[in-house]
Amino acid sequence: MHRLLITGAAGGIGRIMRQRLAPLATIVRLSDICDLGEAAPNEELVSCDLGDDKGVHDLVKGCDAIVHLGGMSGEASFAKIMNANIAGCYNLYEAARANGMPRILLASSLHTVGFYRQDEYFDANVPLRPDGLYGVSKCFSEALARMYFDKFGQETAVVRIGSCFEHPRDHRMLASWLSYGDFASLAECVFKAPRLGCPVIWGVSNNDARWWDNSRANFLGWQPRDNAGLHRARIEETVPLPDPQSSSALYQGGPFTEYPIFKED
Amino acid sequence: MHRLLITGAAGGIGRIMRQRLAPLATIVRLSDICDLGEAAPNEELVSCDLGDDKGVHDLVKGCDAIVHLGGMSGEASFAKIMNANIAGCYNLYEAARANGMPRILLASSLHTVGFYRQDEYFDANVPLRPDGLYGVSKCFSEALARMYFDKFGQETAVVRIGSCFEHPRDHRMLASWLSYGDFASLAECVFKAPRLGCPVIWGVSNNDARWWDNSRANFLGWQPRDNAGLHRARIEETVPLPDPQSSSALYQGGPFTEYPIFKED
Amino acid sequence: MHRLLITGAAGGIGRIMRQRLAPLATIVRLSDICDLGEAAPNEELVSCDLGDDKGVHDLVKGCDAIVHLGGMSGEASFAKIMNANIAGCYNLYEAARANGMPRILLASSLHTVGFYRQDEYFDANVPLRPDGLYGVSKCFSEALARMYFDKFGQETAVVRIGSCFEHPRDHRMLASWLSYGDFASLAECVFKAPRLGCPVIWGVSNNDARWWDNSRANFLGWQPRDNAGLHRARIEETVPLPDPQSSSALYQGGPFTEYPIFKED
Amino acid sequence: MHRLLITGAAGGIGRIMRQRLAPLATIVRLSDICDLGEAAPNEELVSCDLGDDKGVHDLVKGCDAIVHLGGMSGEASFAKIMNANIAGCYNLYEAARANGMPRILLASSLHTVGFYRQDEYFDANVPLRPDGLYGVSKCFSEALARMYFDKFGQETAVVRIGSCFEHPRDHRMLASWLSYGDFASLAECVFKAPRLGCPVIWGVSNNDARWWDNSRANFLGWQPRDNAGLHRARIEETVPLPDPQSSSALYQGGPFTEYPIFKED
Amino acid sequence: MHRLLITGAAGGIGRIMRQRLAPLATIVRLSDICDLGEAAPNEELVSCDLGDDKGVHDLVKGCDAIVHLGGMSGEASFAKIMNANIAGCYNLYEAARANGMPRILLASSLHTVGFYRQDEYFDANVPLRPDGLYGVSKCFSEALARMYFDKFGQETAVVRIGSCFEHPRDHRMLASWLSYGDFASLAECVFKAPRLGCPVIWGVSNNDARWWDNSRANFLGWQPRDNAGLHRARIEETVPLPDPQSSSALYQGGPFTEYPIFKED
Amino acid sequence: MHRLLITGAAGGIGRIMRQRLAPLATIVRLSDICDLGEAAPNEELVSCDLGDDKGVHDLVKGCDAIVHLGGMSGEASFAKIMNANIAGCYNLYEAARANGMPRILLASSLHTVGFYRQDEYFDANVPLRPDGLYGVSKCFSEALARMYFDKFGQETAVVRIGSCFEHPRDHRMLASWLSYGDFASLAECVFKAPRLGCPVIWGVSNNDARWWDNSRANFLGWQPRDNAGLHRARIEETVPLPDPQSSSALYQGGPFTEYPIFKED
Repeated sequence: MHRLLITGAAGGIGRIMRQRLAPLATIVRLSDICDLGEAAPNEELVSCDLGDDKGVHDLVKGCDAIVHLGGMSGEASFAKIMNANIAGCYNLYEAARANGMPRILLASSLHTVGFYRQDEYFDANVPLRPDGLYGVSKCFSEALARMYFDKFGQETAVVRIGSCFEHPRDHRMLASWLSYGDFASLAECVFKAPRLGCPVIWGVSNNDARWWDNSRANFLGWQPRDNAGLHRARIEETVPLPDPQSSSALYQGGPFTEYPIFKED
Repeated sequence: MHRLLITGAAGGIGRIMRQRLAPLATIVRLSDICDLGEAAPNEELVSCDLGDDKGVHDLVKGCDAIVHLGGMSGEASFAKIMNANIAGCYNLYEAARANGMPRILLASSLHTVGFYRQDEYFDANVPLRPDGLYGVSKCFSEALARMYFDKFGQETAVVRIGSCFEHPRDHRMLASWLSYGDFASLAECVFKAPRLGCPVIWGVSNNDARWWDNSRANFLGWQPRDNAGLHRARIEETVPLPDPQSSSALYQGGPFTEYPIFKED
Repeated sequence: MHRLLITGAAGGIGRIMRQRLAPLATIVRLSDICDLGEAAPNEELVSCDLGDDKGVHDLVKGCDAIVHLGGMSGEASFAKIMNANIAGCYNLYEAARANGMPRILLASSLHTVGFYRQDEYFDANVPLRPDGLYGVSKCFSEALARMYFDKFGQETAVVRIGSCFEHPRDHRMLASWLSYGDFASLAECVFKAPRLGCPVIWGVSNNDARWWDNSRANFLGWQPRDNAGLHRARIEETVPLPDPQSSSALYQGGPFTEYPIFKED
Repeated sequence: MHRLLITGAAGGIGRIMRQRLAPLATIVRLSDICDLGEAAPNEELVSCDLGDDKGVHDLVKGCDAIVHLGGMSGEASFAKIMNANIAGCYNLYEAARANGMPRILLASSLHTVGFYRQDEYFDANVPLRPDGLYGVSKCFSEALARMYFDKFGQETAVVRIGSCFEHPRDHRMLASWLSYGDFASLAECVFKAPRLGCPVIWGVSNNDARWWDNSRANFLGWQPRDNAGLHRARIEETVPLPDPQSSSALYQGGPFTEYPIFKED
Repeated sequence: MHRLLITGAAGGIGRIMRQRLAPLATIVRLSDICDLGEAAPNEELVSCDLGDDKGVHDLVKGCDAIVHLGGMSGEASFAKIMNANIAGCYNLYEAARANGMPRILLASSLHTVGFYRQDEYFDANVPLRPDGLYGVSKCFSEALARMYFDKFGQETAVVRIGSCFEHPRDHRMLASWLSYGDFASLAECVFKAPRLGCPVIWGVSNNDARWWDNSRANFLGWQPRDNAGLHRARIEETVPLPDPQSSSALYQGGPFTEYPIFKED
Repeated sequence: MHRLLITGAAGGIGRIMRQRLAPLATIVRLSDICDLGEAAPNEELVSCDLGDDKGVHDLVKGCDAIVHLGGMSGEASFAKIMNANIAGCYNLYEAARANGMPRILLASSLHTVGFYRQDEYFDANVPLRPDGLYGVSKCFSEALARMYFDKFGQETAVVRIGSCFEHPRDHRMLASWLSYGDFASLAECVFKAPRLGCPVIWGVSNNDARWWDNSRANFLGWQPRDNAGLHRARIEETVPLPDPQSSSALYQGGPFTEYPIFKED
């Protein structure tokens, strides 16, 4: 791969993937609206608002592959969501279509299904139940990706990221955690597969307590190696048990299910 | 019901429902961006761009029920879709939430699943496969409606309208046709049900050739009475048989699957 | 059929079936713990407590078929339930086994699944969610019937009766109503089938708003002819709309879901 | 349609379809190994052994559509089955491929699933359970048809015929009966559909007691109009009830499940 | 956890869990109708007949959690089953409801599904097929537990125990074995989960030959560590192969499927 | 086991199994139409054309178990397929039926489902989609085996072999590879099981990228130990990436889907 674009590269996951995915390409182009620090020798830094269609077209030009982490990564006002996640995602797909349709890894989210209970288990074909405007915007992105595949052949790996942190941080993440290493190995599988299509993949490690069945995505050969269960003892010792009737214990989306509609940011 | 709001009342379906749904309420408030003609005694006419949040809030105020037909009802540029269908739908739900959460009948579309083949049969839980930006915007609306129900209790009947015309017009509509009468009786069931929840309902008549299973929505007691099959002989005589490899014969969405991305309108 | 036994023949459904099922057999033996009135020429009346094993053995002797309506037909104290519905059902099956295993139509109930919501639709293989001790006792009976079939070949039609009255009485019964005529025709199908096995059948008329899929029981050839939907207008006019958050609007079991555990009767 | 070929036209169903399907084409070419009587003005008669590949190629040449009823239509020795049903079916598909791939209605059989019990209900995706060599040969034909569709685009309607007679003749046929009229209307739907694909369709009338779900084939717009249930009273009066443990009461395939392997014919 | 109650503590599994679960609570209260030996310092011993409602209320008072192993643990007369397993279970749930609804681990059994064949594979939503009165009583308990959860919020882990012994003892247990260690770790997961709900869990180790899919219970984070497959060589050497038509080879319930109805004990 | 028959013993898999399965029986009888080399002390060599029914009867006589690898193992002319795979398989089953019904491991193939895409995941109940005449002949064999089981009780393990080589050879085999060791251990499980029935088993190792769910066959206790994923790096380095639109990347059957119908061999 010659040039890999990572959008949202200044964010929590972006900063990590900037390091981890570097071996996949000769050049890594990084974009964000926030400061990206200094460029390493193999890096190109681009400041870009995803809502700016011209900017996004320039950003995508010359790229062989895209990891799209950009946009609001949590609940926000509709104005922000509409600009960064809705118009932003449309801009990205139009730019990709105009530039040879590089393969896309699209960061979707568990918040597309956040209103399912934690004692429900399902695969990626389950009807969506988003837990806020952020989750709704990811439903939009998934639908857009599927349409670009069916209509134009644009390939996308839709990855519904659970909770991507260095370690699981609370009881809910014993189910939803995605380790950095497992995310990186998933990206590698996505970009190396002879044919990707447009699968929906749960971005979750091999946790004892996982809620999701990923067998439909077996064909990629991805095997997550980490297991939040190994952090269980620490969490049981250090994190207070959530109230059984609280959103943290009840819903896969946890506290997101309780957020109001943000009117201003 | 005191006041029923019908958005998009100047459109093809809107003009019919303006007549047919009148008996359901004392006052029918009609809105559109296009000319609505003269108000009947039981009618209130409001000109409103759905993208205007203040206007939409005023529009919804005082209504007990909403039939939301407004927005772009076919493929259009992303700018128009984003304003009318995405921001417009958000504005409507926020307005409803601020005004007592009147029950909503939301016009979704078969174009949320337009890339399924015509020889596939399924119920409303099938994963979405929209056939264009219009279809994608309806996926957004459906996700938004579900989120407002799960989070706030706002009830919506999501109606995936097939092809709503006076009569079926071609071979594809032998499967997808929704008669005016059946749409009207569905609306009546939706507003009279003791509890609605947030079901997804195929807006299709009792056609011999229907592609969709509506039994999950049985609880509403809706029984479509019309059958496109009664129009089969006429269509076979007067409409040329589509090429078996054409989108009209292959996909549920028909020609929509072939439309390009409209850049300007 | 020579002799048909109807237990619970003094109850609401029993009194009707006493008339309707008479043509199926030369002799109809009727039992109840309550007064059965006068015997018609083709009738034998037996007073019997189902908890009395000897009495039940005598009751069953010489019968070719059994419609088992006996026992508590609604919520009651555990003592009563245990005697009439649990020991009573065991006594009946042991008596049947000792007397040539006459075919049994077992009255089970929608209250085996009363905690499902009214907007859920399913077939008879759904996991049970009883709404009280009465419903739990019917779960026991169903399990017992299945075991006697698997172990001994005793055939039973397990009929989960919805709401069996002359007419539907409220909004919930628009879905759950079973007409007397449809029950009688079901019994006829059950006793005339060359082979019955041990099917679970929803005892529900052909209502527009039915919650249940009976296609697994098609092989019996039963076609319910009545439709609660024809009573909709009357009910909408005369019965107040239930609160959407009330058990009457929310759960298939309606108010049964709210009953306490009765400690005394 | 210019020329319709009906193979097996001297058989039980063939003789009827010769009359009923005549309106579908200008010329009806009829073939059989048995005597076909005199040709009507619109008919061409061809004597042909399906095992003769050259003969079958000539037979198919010039035909726009094929109703393939030919071959052994019941249990027979493997030699006969292999010649007429296996080589015969291969010859037919090769001939069709060499002659413009006319649409084929392939007579398969309920005997592909004859070992399912009569109290089982399923759609056409169920795993096969043939009840003899005849049924196995039909499994071969179905697989061959599917392969020719996937590989070459040859369209086939695979019709699993239940029991096709003027009237149902016994208790089992109350479920499995296919009336002549319903078969003819199915053929009409098959040949008039804009696109056929390769669906598997249960060839069964709209019987109260049907075992099979045909909704996956809805798209053809076929609605069987007859109902074996209307013959129930006559059958219950005139046909002895089968023993509940006999193959006639137990299995969908009835007595076929008991046939030995025929070594000679 | 302050006080954990283990009923049936003198039984085969009870004696082991008495040791293994001791670390979970400050005090372990043990009850049985049989002799419990001497109390360790952290133990309270209570002799109690589960059929005695007052006794059971006293037994439950002050407990934070319950492992309910009590009652008949194999086939028995209906009188004994009704007292210990049916009335006993009702008494336990009423006592729990009156005493703060401590979380319950309810020992159900593979004998609720004993009539499934050994070559069938399913999850916990499968319709029940008990293999005797014992199995039927467990169906009752499961239904009761579900009702107390739906109606009152009482949490229960319904554990369908396979074959819980130190080692697997025959070919059937290569599939059904539950090791002591895996049972203990399951109990720990059940009592430590932030929210339990009312899941049905297969009590089975991670056996190569397991018949049951436990993924619906993943959320508990339980990972059985033992595998009966490691005992395969020993069993193949030392245990005679069962006849392929015997209940031991045919049914999941093994010989239980053959037991008669015990009239006396 | 006294005598194990391996047909097709001179073929690629046959030569390996000749060594690996030797420990399972006192005598291994090997047959092929090709040269089998020299017999080891425990071996009997038989030259046999599977299309010769007498020869096959002699071949099977005295055998306790059969591994049926014989017949065409890839695409061939219909004449060859019909003789070796269709008549040959019939001859084998008739011979087995006449000789005590020894248990059979039948080599079926992934080419029964070769037209599914590589991004589809399913279990063995999926409808068949063969990719050529070879695949169709295996569909015939599977149907025949099932019929002999349902009708006569003949047990067969239907093994749909993926790609059985020493190592995986290309990207597709990262999903479909079956190691020699895993095939041998499967055969051992098949012949040692107390009861086999007639399961369909995916013959595939424990590959990260496997397309198939084997859990329905768990009861055999087979655990494949190898994983093509360990060969991924080597294949990615040494084998060119297939074109994403080529059959090698698109279909499970790979190039088989493109083969023509072979008219001569």
